[in-house]
Amino acid sequence: MRLLVINPNTSASMTRTILAAARGVATADVIVDALEPQRGPTSVEGRFDEVISAYWTLDAVLPVASRYDGFIVACYGHHPVIGALREALQQPVLGIMEASILHALPLGDRFSIVTTSERWRPLLIEGVRVLGLQDRCASVRSSGLAVLDLEALPAEVVRERLCAAACEAIATDGAEVICLGCAGMAGLDTAVRQVARVPVIDGVTAAVVILTGLVRTAAATSKQALYQPIAKRSIVGLPRGITTAYAATSER
Amino acid sequence: MRLLVINPNTSASMTRTILAAARGVATADVIVDALEPQRGPTSVEGRFDEVISAYWTLDAVLPVASRYDGFIVACYGHHPVIGALREALQQPVLGIMEASILHALPLGDRFSIVTTSERWRPLLIEGVRVLGLQDRCASVRSSGLAVLDLEALPAEVVRERLCAAACEAIATDGAEVICLGCAGMAGLDTAVRQVARVPVIDGVTAAVVILTGLVRTAAATSKQALYQPIAKRSIVGLPRGITTAYAATSER
Amino acid sequence: MRLLVINPNTSASMTRTILAAARGVATADVIVDALEPQRGPTSVEGRFDEVISAYWTLDAVLPVASRYDGFIVACYGHHPVIGALREALQQPVLGIMEASILHALPLGDRFSIVTTSERWRPLLIEGVRVLGLQDRCASVRSSGLAVLDLEALPAEVVRERLCAAACEAIATDGAEVICLGCAGMAGLDTAVRQVARVPVIDGVTAAVVILTGLVRTAAATSKQALYQPIAKRSIVGLPRGITTAYAATSER
Amino acid sequence: MRLLVINPNTSASMTRTILAAARGVATADVIVDALEPQRGPTSVEGRFDEVISAYWTLDAVLPVASRYDGFIVACYGHHPVIGALREALQQPVLGIMEASILHALPLGDRFSIVTTSERWRPLLIEGVRVLGLQDRCASVRSSGLAVLDLEALPAEVVRERLCAAACEAIATDGAEVICLGCAGMAGLDTAVRQVARVPVIDGVTAAVVILTGLVRTAAATSKQALYQPIAKRSIVGLPRGITTAYAATSER
Amino acid sequence: MRLLVINPNTSASMTRTILAAARGVATADVIVDALEPQRGPTSVEGRFDEVISAYWTLDAVLPVASRYDGFIVACYGHHPVIGALREALQQPVLGIMEASILHALPLGDRFSIVTTSERWRPLLIEGVRVLGLQDRCASVRSSGLAVLDLEALPAEVVRERLCAAACEAIATDGAEVICLGCAGMAGLDTAVRQVARVPVIDGVTAAVVILTGLVRTAAATSKQALYQPIAKRSIVGLPRGITTAYAATSER
Amino acid sequence: MRLLVINPNTSASMTRTILAAARGVATADVIVDALEPQRGPTSVEGRFDEVISAYWTLDAVLPVASRYDGFIVACYGHHPVIGALREALQQPVLGIMEASILHALPLGDRFSIVTTSERWRPLLIEGVRVLGLQDRCASVRSSGLAVLDLEALPAEVVRERLCAAACEAIATDGAEVICLGCAGMAGLDTAVRQVARVPVIDGVTAAVVILTGLVRTAAATSKQALYQPIAKRSIVGLPRGITTAYAATSER
Repeated sequence: MRLLVINPNTSASMTRTILAAARGVATADVIVDALEPQRGPTSVEGRFDEVISAYWTLDAVLPVASRYDGFIVACYGHHPVIGALREALQQPVLGIMEASILHALPLGDRFSIVTTSERWRPLLIEGVRVLGLQDRCASVRSSGLAVLDLEALPAEVVRERLCAAACEAIATDGAEVICLGCAGMAGLDTAVRQVARVPVIDGVTAAVVILTGLVRTAAATSKQALYQPIAKRSIVGLPRGITTAYAATSER
Repeated sequence: MRLLVINPNTSASMTRTILAAARGVATADVIVDALEPQRGPTSVEGRFDEVISAYWTLDAVLPVASRYDGFIVACYGHHPVIGALREALQQPVLGIMEASILHALPLGDRFSIVTTSERWRPLLIEGVRVLGLQDRCASVRSSGLAVLDLEALPAEVVRERLCAAACEAIATDGAEVICLGCAGMAGLDTAVRQVARVPVIDGVTAAVVILTGLVRTAAATSKQALYQPIAKRSIVGLPRGITTAYAATSER
Repeated sequence: MRLLVINPNTSASMTRTILAAARGVATADVIVDALEPQRGPTSVEGRFDEVISAYWTLDAVLPVASRYDGFIVACYGHHPVIGALREALQQPVLGIMEASILHALPLGDRFSIVTTSERWRPLLIEGVRVLGLQDRCASVRSSGLAVLDLEALPAEVVRERLCAAACEAIATDGAEVICLGCAGMAGLDTAVRQVARVPVIDGVTAAVVILTGLVRTAAATSKQALYQPIAKRSIVGLPRGITTAYAATSER
Repeated sequence: MRLLVINPNTSASMTRTILAAARGVATADVIVDALEPQRGPTSVEGRFDEVISAYWTLDAVLPVASRYDGFIVACYGHHPVIGALREALQQPVLGIMEASILHALPLGDRFSIVTTSERWRPLLIEGVRVLGLQDRCASVRSSGLAVLDLEALPAEVVRERLCAAACEAIATDGAEVICLGCAGMAGLDTAVRQVARVPVIDGVTAAVVILTGLVRTAAATSKQALYQPIAKRSIVGLPRGITTAYAATSER
Repeated sequence: MRLLVINPNTSASMTRTILAAARGVATADVIVDALEPQRGPTSVEGRFDEVISAYWTLDAVLPVASRYDGFIVACYGHHPVIGALREALQQPVLGIMEASILHALPLGDRFSIVTTSERWRPLLIEGVRVLGLQDRCASVRSSGLAVLDLEALPAEVVRERLCAAACEAIATDGAEVICLGCAGMAGLDTAVRQVARVPVIDGVTAAVVILTGLVRTAAATSKQALYQPIAKRSIVGLPRGITTAYAATSER
Repeated sequence: MRLLVINPNTSASMTRTILAAARGVATADVIVDALEPQRGPTSVEGRFDEVISAYWTLDAVLPVASRYDGFIVACYGHHPVIGALREALQQPVLGIMEASILHALPLGDRFSIVTTSERWRPLLIEGVRVLGLQDRCASVRSSGLAVLDLEALPAEVVRERLCAAACEAIATDGAEVICLGCAGMAGLDTAVRQVARVPVIDGVTAAVVILTGLVRTAAATSKQALYQPIAKRSIVGLPRGITTAYAATSER
């Protein structure tokens, strides 16, 4: 089984971090690769970034997609490339926000998401509503950290900030499980768990094991209703990867 | 006051149709222009198309954005370019799905959307849920028409199909107001109203008058929480329009 | 186009204030009149007042209704006269609570209402629920001001109280747009906007521009389902205006 | 214990029917009276009627209110006089729609309301939403009968129509309990129960026993938040009953 | 009329307290008995206890069930024995959580539950959601008291703790009515009411009067859908009471 | 890794079927055992059965629980033993209804459950509501088959009935993914998938792969809030397994 972890920003160092986390949890029979787009923003922090990121991510992924059995979109949120890939491909596609919540649900009644800056709070609140999972969500809390702080600040400081936000979610909002709300937090789940004393879910980890399960049971994206294949259309002036995808669907 | 109607697909003839509809309802003091992206699909029919369309639409709109007081995204649905433009700009941005529902709400308790093909139903159901307006939505019904059918089929056939779907929404689902769920239906509202005998809302028309009102009252997009300005980032290899937007935001 | 602004309490001075605000935003081709009922309470502050107010408002409005193209009910809340007028008339009828929310929705993800006394909080929370818009409502906050305080206290004090409540809604509840929750706050939106630095919506202003748009597009209240015309009935001992309405409907 | 059944329309014959039903279920220690307003429509069939009906009902009830321990508003729906009375009085006030649903909830998971004409469907759907009980409501179904048909048509025909609607609600909508959705259906519950073979609730009956229980346990309307007492105000030209109420509240 | 109050834990002293409270509110024509299971935990404080408690409660109740016209399950929460008894019996079955909420709804817009330890909060939040009544629930608040504290601590301390939690629910959460969230709080409603100055509902009291009303109107549990009779099955090794129930249903 | 599949009814043959299905999907490093309780009903078809089944299932599972890393409750629905085990144990516990929905969510926007008899429909509708996943549930449909029919009827007939219900869910309710709503349907997913042409999820299969992933990532049930450990209590007359559990918790 081959899985592709997609980092939709252009930071190759973040791709490496995520890939290491993914490979750490993958079983021996699962090959995990990763890629990032060649163009676009170095981090994704809003709707605008998402569009730019989605475009070049599609261009990067589609030419190699047939080599993989499933895909992980390693951006915490309701990134538009998830839906686009589900239309373009048959193989299952999983976002790490969705994956972390799916793992959290059986472990407690209500989960909270601990994310980076305040900027992400409304995006994630809307994202949980789109998934229809708001009844189980106790809160979305910001740690006050920027994405880049996760690598730039001393590890101790990062841990303290995440733990503080997690503990507040538990004490004030009634959270029973904490989802770490950023791909860049991979590997920090253990540290937060020791302080918060509740299950702490890392989205990349959750995505790898859930996707492994989906592939093992031959699950495919439904082509009924929302994720129907892309209709053939005349297109002009698009890069090779995207063009291929439009052409490929013409044969369905 | 200058408004820009944005057709996010590459069909210039559809741009002309929409522009004519928009100008037909605009008052004398409102100048309405329109544009479409130079690259991308000729129609938008799913998540994949939306990403491609959003990318090139941003590239086309941003260089000219400062000339306009408000923007209409003339694609019926929760198109990602709406949120991206709201981040990038201060002026109000209105999608035609949202506009048609805002116009429908004071006219009756529950509205239905009559759209083109079955393919759009789940997209619009999800779109209404994202807007948080599902409690007032009686149903989303397909007319069985493809987008291109709207221009290709005899006008009589198109009218009959739309009227049939509208009447079913009224009789079976309890709809009190009908929203026409496609930019290409501009101008068909009168015909459907005569048969269905309830208010029938065309999204382009609704968007022009609502946006005129927003601009007249100096309304601007909130820069708090969801639509914060784009953060400055190092980007590589993006087209001129998009690059400008990233640079512009650096000065905020 | 002629619009009628209805102040459902008996305070003629408040009618004048509201009318001035309405005329200030109306375009040259829109004639705006206003009236208040001759009997009833001087302010509307609960369900009981609403019934008394609605009764005499109907009696005052119906005899002159045929002269107008649309109606604004200038009481912030789910006032029962709104539904009664929608049944009695074909022309569109807009409440200022509804109008302010419709204007707020495209400007941000979540709005808060800043109202006068604590007494109004539960009424407005219920009102938002009836409109089915609770998913977009961050909070309803009281400024601690009585309706009469708006005119009696020094302007500076009023502004400070409203700004304080607005800022709390933004910081604590995640509000991105503020709706001023009282007809008597007309004209205070600019001052609050300067402090709160988010869009601030005055309901009278919003109602004028939305209603202008509805009338321009020939929108009418749906007579399907909720707002069907009043059935002819034998009635006894009612004032002239109301009696006329019952009689008029007999001809439909 | 003395209870007052309030028929908010001017039909004295309907008052007698309702009173008989109420007395039929009241225990020996409960005195039940009834009244109707002297002015207003002979039946209540919409928002307009509700306002007129509420006004004269308040005027009729308030002068005698101190003689009673509790009140039943015998109009099936979210009649505005319910809220107005709750503000004006300390004693508990119960609408028959609310009462029938409260009785239905412990008897099955989901209830349906079988009402008279199609005209009432949207009113009752909105009413259930205001009560916040929509999750337990399987459907609101019309029997196609006018209110007056209940007395005018042969009893057999009336029964057949109600049973047909009830059986459809059970078979198609999953209803487990049927609420009869009109005060004029008092006494028909037994007949429908025999055919439908599920619990069938008459609102007047339910209201009498629930209100008896509330009074027995010394329950009073909460004066916190929504139903605060009426504030003293200068009023002009209102009938005696209503005037008294405004004056009375000044002493609180 | 004979009612059975079921204390599903094995504490006979708590049964006596509850029975006294129930008899205190029952009218002269209502005979109230009580029982508790012979085996199981002395208090019910979670899902595990509920299963053990439900099993032995069924065994205790079923052999005597035919002597009673209705049943009260005197454990505050969504105890599984409620549903099991509704399947096994025709007579109405009422839980005290449900009863207290049904009594609270007509007295104010939103209620809060004041319970014992933090341990019960998530159980009651889930319970309210299962009942579909979450839109009317302002909050669930813990008093910090253990169930046994209710009897062990000085009455004054208990009162103070409950009043503090109730007042916080009113001031912070907008509660208009307080439901006492534990069977062991029977008799404390008056004391809390004096301090909180809103209606305070004791579940046992509410259950007795509501059940009396249901029985008086010949209400029965719906056998449609959720509470269909138990299907005949071969069973092995179960205690006498439960065995009888399986056998009894075979004759339906 | 050792997983225990718990069949909560007393049918050993059904245990064997389920175990075979579970082992069929488990990877080489996962040991799967199964057991059923020695007492109780041969099938679980309602709230009453659930209580009896839960009791003896706890007694059977608890003595051997420490040997396993995770547990699957192989009864499709919101069985009370799931919550009880989550309190009693640290290891993750997964019901097959929950597991099938978790697997369905990433594969399409809305799922439907195809179950056995009409009897299960309201139970599953309530179960989905308790999980807070109702916004993604298109419908619950009955195949009209009894649980025993799954083994007794010719395989062809069973397949046809399931396929018919699945196709109706897709065509009428908008389902994009089908969840097979009975443990006894294990192995039928492939046949239904071929006809329905959408993803079809078997709950046992889904549970094995999800639980494997949870165990691999060292996930544990949250002991915060809902699933706190069982409090030590004096108990009388309970079977050995249950008694042990009460005692064990005393040491926490």
